[in-house]
Amino acid sequence: MDKEQLFVTLIINSWQIQVDRFGKFISELSDEQMMNEFAPGRNRGIYLVGHLVAYHDMLSEILGTGKRNYPEMELQFLRTPDKSSLQNTSITELRQRWAAVHERLRNEFEALPADAWLARHESMTDDDFEKDSLRNKLSVLLSRTNHIAYHFGQMRLLK
Amino acid sequence: MDKEQLFVTLIINSWQIQVDRFGKFISELSDEQMMNEFAPGRNRGIYLVGHLVAYHDMLSEILGTGKRNYPEMELQFLRTPDKSSLQNTSITELRQRWAAVHERLRNEFEALPADAWLARHESMTDDDFEKDSLRNKLSVLLSRTNHIAYHFGQMRLLK
Repeated sequence: MDKEQLFVTLIINSWQIQVDRFGKFISELSDEQMMNEFAPGRNRGIYLVGHLVAYHDMLSEILGTGKRNYPEMELQFLRTPDKSSLQNTSITELRQRWAAVHERLRNEFEALPADAWLARHESMTDDDFEKDSLRNKLSVLLSRTNHIAYHFGQMRLLK
Repeated sequence: MDKEQLFVTLIINSWQIQVDRFGKFISELSDEQMMNEFAPGRNRGIYLVGHLVAYHDMLSEILGTGKRNYPEMELQFLRTPDKSSLQNTSITELRQRWAAVHERLRNEFEALPADAWLARHESMTDDDFEKDSLRNKLSVLLSRTNHIAYHFGQMRLLK
């Protein structure tokens, strides 16, 4: 493995560890547990799962690696808070989408050459990128990885 | 900035963002809020702070960049659960240690050449490292970064 690929692999591994840990945890939660708030007055488990699925579904477009599959989830789980009438995706459906989105991303990430990870992400202009080359696709992935861990710290309270 | 340094800087930045976010948050919490459990029956804020200070204090030795300053905290905040009689470090002291440890680490990280980040960490043998060169100092830092985010998701519940 050349050095550049080594760095990229390290960062993708870190992402995948968080994805797998979260995925394993929700596979062991009952549907009833998923409907609970993780702390009094806070979001429900089902909302956190939907929130991550919706956010990661969009990630393909931000990285320029593919298209999202569930555009309607942006309104349901990113632009609208929990416990509105909009979160009408079933738990079974959410579990399937969790698996589908992360499998798709895994394939897209594997197919992306190491060099491309250092390019700008799609929500950024060339001009901005010239000023700050650290705002590349890898920095997006690092940030999303921490975001899963953040919510996993909450999700764990459901057990 | 050469490419190798760029990768290292990306990962250190990701760590620093989490450290700064957590640090800012606790600087805005009252001592009284710090004494609360983040959810019923869970750890207190003060314990989470001590837990991260103790864990990050040790990080210098795991990365081989320096010595820890508070070895007694390992027993208090890593080997013993919250609400035992051992967590007797004051909140004022913990706030100062949070700042001191992360300032020390920032300097140590800056002084470490990019290449050294790809070397094995100190709790690993040369033989093991030969089998899996991904288990290097950077992988430790990535893992600790996610660990802060994980606990920040809980800490936030104190507000």
